[in-house]
Amino acid sequence: MAPDSLAHLAQRLQAFADARDWGRFHSPKNLASALVVEAGELLEPFQWLTEAQSRELSPEAKDAVALEMADVLLYLLQLGNQLGVDVVAAGHRKVDINEGRFPSA
Amino acid sequence: MAPDSLAHLAQRLQAFADARDWGRFHSPKNLASALVVEAGELLEPFQWLTEAQSRELSPEAKDAVALEMADVLLYLLQLGNQLGVDVVAAGHRKVDINEGRFPSA
Amino acid sequence: MAPDSLAHLAQRLQAFADARDWGRFHSPKNLASALVVEAGELLEPFQWLTEAQSRELSPEAKDAVALEMADVLLYLLQLGNQLGVDVVAAGHRKVDINEGRFPSA
Amino acid sequence: MAPDSLAHLAQRLQAFADARDWGRFHSPKNLASALVVEAGELLEPFQWLTEAQSRELSPEAKDAVALEMADVLLYLLQLGNQLGVDVVAAGHRKVDINEGRFPSA
Repeated sequence: MAPDSLAHLAQRLQAFADARDWGRFHSPKNLASALVVEAGELLEPFQWLTEAQSRELSPEAKDAVALEMADVLLYLLQLGNQLGVDVVAAGHRKVDINEGRFPSA
Repeated sequence: MAPDSLAHLAQRLQAFADARDWGRFHSPKNLASALVVEAGELLEPFQWLTEAQSRELSPEAKDAVALEMADVLLYLLQLGNQLGVDVVAAGHRKVDINEGRFPSA
Repeated sequence: MAPDSLAHLAQRLQAFADARDWGRFHSPKNLASALVVEAGELLEPFQWLTEAQSRELSPEAKDAVALEMADVLLYLLQLGNQLGVDVVAAGHRKVDINEGRFPSA
Repeated sequence: MAPDSLAHLAQRLQAFADARDWGRFHSPKNLASALVVEAGELLEPFQWLTEAQSRELSPEAKDAVALEMADVLLYLLQLGNQLGVDVVAAGHRKVDINEGRFPSA
């Protein structure tokens, strides 16, 4: 497995939670709650920006946003770990569905 | 590139948006908004469940949840496309930070 | 009490939940989850609009938004009922704080 | 108008924004974004609590939650100001709808 792959990241998260005995907190209900909390934090730096400004973030702002994106991804992977869901496969399935729903010109 | 990889999924999304000329809608501000909307939809099936019930979803419920997880992932990748952020690398960086913050016993 | 007042609305919600024995579902944790789900639904119709378009909603769109705003308010009041919090008093207190934080010119 | 009423609170918010020339930031799109960000902050203290723990908050925790509830209410009222929506009337209308949808025993 490539050391920087998504599957490796999911494994790191499982080991991280196991080492701290956090499994009892990580019910799917709680992980979905934590995910939406992080999604709100991801939106926060954009809330008063114009769309144009949001396309021209400074490197510092972009870096902060990248770490908020990471938080969302980490909870998504942990939720996948708990539910036994392969989120990348689900993503491909959803794009298949969307291609049927929104035909291109 | 493996056809089911995350990088391939990000490329499919870029091609999908390009074919429909949706780039003008896909400002980072709008994508972050869409992501939190989907995160809310992901939480919705869990809101009245107990934590124990959330650990025992039926296959049908789990499948519906998987597609909501997919929606979150798709917006995360599209935001990464727009900002030039590698969200998996950001995820590994965030786990590094968390390992420093929360030492295991 | 004026029949259309906020206090009357909070009482209606309490009676509504009591008549259906929904108190066991209405833990503060669950009500806060339901509230953010509704807040996501409130954001949804705005996610692809420009700011200018969001200022020019049709009467039909505005009416749909009003009902999503109502859902947020109803969970806020039910959370207040459960926690014994007077949300209007808290609102005045928060404006007092904000006046100290953001002096006007 | 009673000095602690909701209508008075909505007026204070309008005067507060006017005095700071914040009207240009307060598009309905932006206010709905800010509202969901605050709703996420309101959920945050509950995310790892059990439902039982969420019913037994300390006075300090309850006070912090009250101020997060206030933030949600303030954006709801500001959105009502911008759209010309009476959120309490909308709330009563939604309870009427719910009474039809969920008959009590």
